[in-house]
Amino acid sequence: MGEAVDVVVVGAGYAGLTAATVLADAGVDVAVVEARDRVGGRVYTEVLEDGTPIDHGGQWVGPTQKRLLALATRTGVETFATYDAGNNIEWIDGVAHTYSGPIPSGDPEVAADLTVAMLDLNLMALDVPLDAPWEAADAEEWDGTTFASWIRESVENPKAHARFALFAQAVWSAEPRDLSLLHLLFYIHSAGGAVPLVSTTGGAQDRRFVTGAQGVANALAARLGSRVRLSAPVRAISQGAEEVTVDGLSAKAAIIALPPTLAGRLIYDPPLPADRDQLTQRVPMGTVIKIHVVYPSPFWRDAGFSGQITAYDGPVRVAYDNSPADGHCGVLLAFIEGDEGRIWGRRTREEREAAVIDAFAAAFGEEARHPARYLEKSWADDEYSRGCYAGLMAPGAWTGYGPALRRPVGRIHWAGTETATVWAGYIDGAIQSGERAAREVLEVLGVPTDKWPALLPESGA
Amino acid sequence: MGEAVDVVVVGAGYAGLTAATVLADAGVDVAVVEARDRVGGRVYTEVLEDGTPIDHGGQWVGPTQKRLLALATRTGVETFATYDAGNNIEWIDGVAHTYSGPIPSGDPEVAADLTVAMLDLNLMALDVPLDAPWEAADAEEWDGTTFASWIRESVENPKAHARFALFAQAVWSAEPRDLSLLHLLFYIHSAGGAVPLVSTTGGAQDRRFVTGAQGVANALAARLGSRVRLSAPVRAISQGAEEVTVDGLSAKAAIIALPPTLAGRLIYDPPLPADRDQLTQRVPMGTVIKIHVVYPSPFWRDAGFSGQITAYDGPVRVAYDNSPADGHCGVLLAFIEGDEGRIWGRRTREEREAAVIDAFAAAFGEEARHPARYLEKSWADDEYSRGCYAGLMAPGAWTGYGPALRRPVGRIHWAGTETATVWAGYIDGAIQSGERAAREVLEVLGVPTDKWPALLPESGA
Repeated sequence: MGEAVDVVVVGAGYAGLTAATVLADAGVDVAVVEARDRVGGRVYTEVLEDGTPIDHGGQWVGPTQKRLLALATRTGVETFATYDAGNNIEWIDGVAHTYSGPIPSGDPEVAADLTVAMLDLNLMALDVPLDAPWEAADAEEWDGTTFASWIRESVENPKAHARFALFAQAVWSAEPRDLSLLHLLFYIHSAGGAVPLVSTTGGAQDRRFVTGAQGVANALAARLGSRVRLSAPVRAISQGAEEVTVDGLSAKAAIIALPPTLAGRLIYDPPLPADRDQLTQRVPMGTVIKIHVVYPSPFWRDAGFSGQITAYDGPVRVAYDNSPADGHCGVLLAFIEGDEGRIWGRRTREEREAAVIDAFAAAFGEEARHPARYLEKSWADDEYSRGCYAGLMAPGAWTGYGPALRRPVGRIHWAGTETATVWAGYIDGAIQSGERAAREVLEVLGVPTDKWPALLPESGA
Repeated sequence: MGEAVDVVVVGAGYAGLTAATVLADAGVDVAVVEARDRVGGRVYTEVLEDGTPIDHGGQWVGPTQKRLLALATRTGVETFATYDAGNNIEWIDGVAHTYSGPIPSGDPEVAADLTVAMLDLNLMALDVPLDAPWEAADAEEWDGTTFASWIRESVENPKAHARFALFAQAVWSAEPRDLSLLHLLFYIHSAGGAVPLVSTTGGAQDRRFVTGAQGVANALAARLGSRVRLSAPVRAISQGAEEVTVDGLSAKAAIIALPPTLAGRLIYDPPLPADRDQLTQRVPMGTVIKIHVVYPSPFWRDAGFSGQITAYDGPVRVAYDNSPADGHCGVLLAFIEGDEGRIWGRRTREEREAAVIDAFAAAFGEEARHPARYLEKSWADDEYSRGCYAGLMAPGAWTGYGPALRRPVGRIHWAGTETATVWAGYIDGAIQSGERAAREVLEVLGVPTDKWPALLPESGA
């Protein structure tokens, strides 16, 4: 017969690697099977010839993302502050305004309306139980309301509407019409508020990793050694009374650490229960193309710019300074998200490059027209992610199917950032989910709790 | 190397069988591969020992469903009028009211509000282009509004809200919060209005098939003979410049006649384009359990009841007389849909049976407590449908991804009722989609149009 281990983990992103690390540290025989030829999942660092790390996927860490910070400390991966000095640029009707801080203030009246509405969202978000959003008192109404409808009904100043659309695009790589208000509120609560989601200093974009965000994942994988098996896409999972078998590898339990929509594409024998399967039909991935332009130096800094751009039309609505820690070269980062991601995703690389360079030149001058490198990553095209940053619960999904998100199916347990309660959708949430799934499995295996490895901060929460 | 045909069709539901029939009639060498051990897809007739056909899936045909009527005529499968004499029952706050016709009138004021709002929906629906819903003038707003939001904003009388919830449950096996208003309007337009969707006589539930609704599919399959290969679930599709290969069977073109969510679960090499893949993440299937209770006779008819029930709470909100054409026994049909389908889907068969019998006894008296047979089919549990009646475009799906619904990907063409423009979601739409996909392939293959078989009525539309 085939090979046997105690536990098989499907997916070597942060969720799967964390789960495997907890299990291995508890003395459990674990194997991680990963479709790609690398670990990290939606976190993917390419190192250029000169050593510059380019993070094509998740890349930031914020001060309340304590699990990721703890893992970075444990693995010795250093962080540095995201460049946030100088002026941000906000484009309004073709005119560039400068501002600082997380809320664009080119139009002060709109900025005030935006701030008030953000506070409203924060208050509503507090009423969403993180472990059971469907139990919110207004869950039924909120899950049947798109963010677009909420904006229309709740934000009087029509000029502020485009700002909220940008909020949806930048945080969920989706349009307001795609988002369940309940999911949006859950996500805000899970991040500790709307402002941390959009903030650089002090928020989700606070710091970066000196060697790139895949560094922590690489360190976890190195520690797991031969337990991690790359280039092994999983197709079929069967389970009986005694074991679960993942493409010929049998185990006492399995942890599926994939986005729900991809988990739903595996072939299960016996088939998954109806509610679990139908859940996976209702968690579509966002649409984002992440673009890096490398320059000989971060020339915009000398002109007093932070590199951060906010815009409400065109392909580039959000941009950052993404230069390496030592500043030996300059790197600008642009996101093309939501509708624009779909429109520009069907165009050529050359067309995208020209459009992004145009946007950078408009903001920072003609020097932007002389890049050393152009790099791009369309996550919706990536066979093993099929979108980023995260799976979004469609309207009706939380209230109709929420309990199936984490409920194990026999010997199969579910991880992945979409199953997190804290920083869902982020690397930190992926880590939380991996720990939680590992704990479920340790309990099933009957490993005494005094053998459980020390948990990362707040994991008991 | 493996076997080769001109065209391979994946799925032997009405869409796939129609496509294969058109191709075979044009002299094309076609193979149909089907996962199940039967044809018909979401149409599934079980014949009881005494010959009574039980339609566990799609079962009705209406006067404007001309393709299905034409196919029935061609294959010699007879139809008969759905039993629609006597009183329908409407439960309002625990009291049974009787009415006739498609609009429950137990509360005349509510019925009037409902009728006015239905007319509003009809008018709006006319503005949705059937072949391009995303081009409706208000597409952006409508696709970002759930049906639940529309009801709250547009229907003043709160008592009418439950009636609209029932409309969503009965027609889409979904809740109002799940439905994009744009999709709902597209669907209404595609059916020729809201009233045809809910009507028995003269509407979508007008007639039934004497030997069951799978009869026409069986006849098509018999004609196709060995071209149809049962019990052959497809896993992987690869294509190059010269051919497309479906699990080892190579062809010049393939037609995938599956619901989008299931089509998205196949493994494609090269991977599908981003927009096509992300579309399949946004077309979840409805939730319905279809229940039949067989009695020695249709006893409710003698008491002046049609067998039709309308209710706004409990598991059974919609019921019909589903007795065989010759009336040699009585059959009542109950649908458990949407939220109730999920709640009752997690309970036992015995619990469902008791609840349905209770509902029938409350409506038609104690004789309902003495059934001869109880049969049920949960479509969300069915591995090869994963829900019914149809895939629903989630909010944002039409405007974000609509053009990817029918756009071929290389040698791969898309069929299935979700791709139809007329009677989308119904058997008739499946047939239209199969014809359309077959025509695409005939053109690709270079078959001269004078060799194309005669099309079914209106197929040129």
